[in-house]
Amino acid sequence: MTMLTTIGFDADDTLWHNETFFRLTQDRFAELLADHSPADHLHDRLLAAERRNLGQYGFGVKGFTLSMIETAIEVSQGRVPAAVIGEILAAGREMLEHPVELLPHARAVVTALAEAYRVVLITKGDLLDQERKLAQSGLGDLFDGVEIVSDKTPEIYRAAFARHGTGADQGLMVGNSLKSDVLPMLAVGGWGVHVPHGLTWALERADPPVGHRRFHEITDLAPLPDLVSELAQSHKT
Amino acid sequence: MTMLTTIGFDADDTLWHNETFFRLTQDRFAELLADHSPADHLHDRLLAAERRNLGQYGFGVKGFTLSMIETAIEVSQGRVPAAVIGEILAAGREMLEHPVELLPHARAVVTALAEAYRVVLITKGDLLDQERKLAQSGLGDLFDGVEIVSDKTPEIYRAAFARHGTGADQGLMVGNSLKSDVLPMLAVGGWGVHVPHGLTWALERADPPVGHRRFHEITDLAPLPDLVSELAQSHKT
Repeated sequence: MTMLTTIGFDADDTLWHNETFFRLTQDRFAELLADHSPADHLHDRLLAAERRNLGQYGFGVKGFTLSMIETAIEVSQGRVPAAVIGEILAAGREMLEHPVELLPHARAVVTALAEAYRVVLITKGDLLDQERKLAQSGLGDLFDGVEIVSDKTPEIYRAAFARHGTGADQGLMVGNSLKSDVLPMLAVGGWGVHVPHGLTWALERADPPVGHRRFHEITDLAPLPDLVSELAQSHKT
Repeated sequence: MTMLTTIGFDADDTLWHNETFFRLTQDRFAELLADHSPADHLHDRLLAAERRNLGQYGFGVKGFTLSMIETAIEVSQGRVPAAVIGEILAAGREMLEHPVELLPHARAVVTALAEAYRVVLITKGDLLDQERKLAQSGLGDLFDGVEIVSDKTPEIYRAAFARHGTGADQGLMVGNSLKSDVLPMLAVGGWGVHVPHGLTWALERADPPVGHRRFHEITDLAPLPDLVSELAQSHKT
């Protein structure tokens, strides 16, 4: 019996592009507010608003849109025209419509792993938006379980791998965020595989664990099935 | 063996107050926009925006706040001052902070039913906000399962009662919305118990089913345990 039964996948920037759309929207936001604020100051104020509002809004496009509007009012000292706010609303709605673009190897890797392991999608963000992206990705039927969560904590991973697998210590989580996908999974005794994405949101940054025997890093998803096989082999009982 | 094993509870306006806070916020919204639109016209435009945006924003306070902002821009023909938009943002944040007030009998009824049945909470809205309300309600530990869903469809009930119970045909759903809590549950063969709330959001209105043998209506939660006992007795095999 192997001791690795269940593979958890992060979604945004692990299986499909996400941060790219946030960056494009922020660029548009900077253009819209160019008369009121230099871009770097605007970016700092937006990040501060996102951090301040995270406990109430949670993750996702709707909260991001609300934080952009709040920041536009703040940096313009209440002088931003309603038409600009309307443009920000439109930019937020466009994010909720953007087509899903899978990252390289995503479909092949999930398909291959689903043949021998339980595969689970574990993602955070707006409920409806994440469901839409999963449906559009065409990957939905490959997963044995889907968890859309408000935050990615050790307790979340413990519960998700208990529910869909055989416990976190027999589970592996793969994702682009050390902070959300890797560290809390290691904390509950699972494997954490980091697949860095070129763009990382400031609030997702964290230092990699040093010398952790269940931590691995790969440059893209392609080597994941071989890595999983190796780990499963070396942990047979 | 009884054929009724699992009781599903809606949350907002079934276990605790919700629509009251939306109405208070709408009153404040009408005051803020009084220079730009009569209240009844404003209300119609807001409802139209909510309906239009439902497919992208889903249910919950964040989408409601975004729809209020959109409506403020629309009815003022782009003349609403940023300070008013700031007030709308603040009103939305207040909704996300309002203390949870349980409805009469909620705690006693869930406690009583949890002793003999599986009890599940099935609610829609913003993920984080619903989690916050459940935590503040103090009822969290009573439930065998919690499902926060993007919409309440027959398929959602089929899946939730399969996951947490013994199938929808051995399940009963209780809630204040005929459209969301009762009709889709009846559609998958379960019992639907309507507990009307004084205030119902226009987008939740529906006609009651006529002569459906698994449909029941009660005026508040107090008679629910007796009703459940009767139904369970009469469906023993």
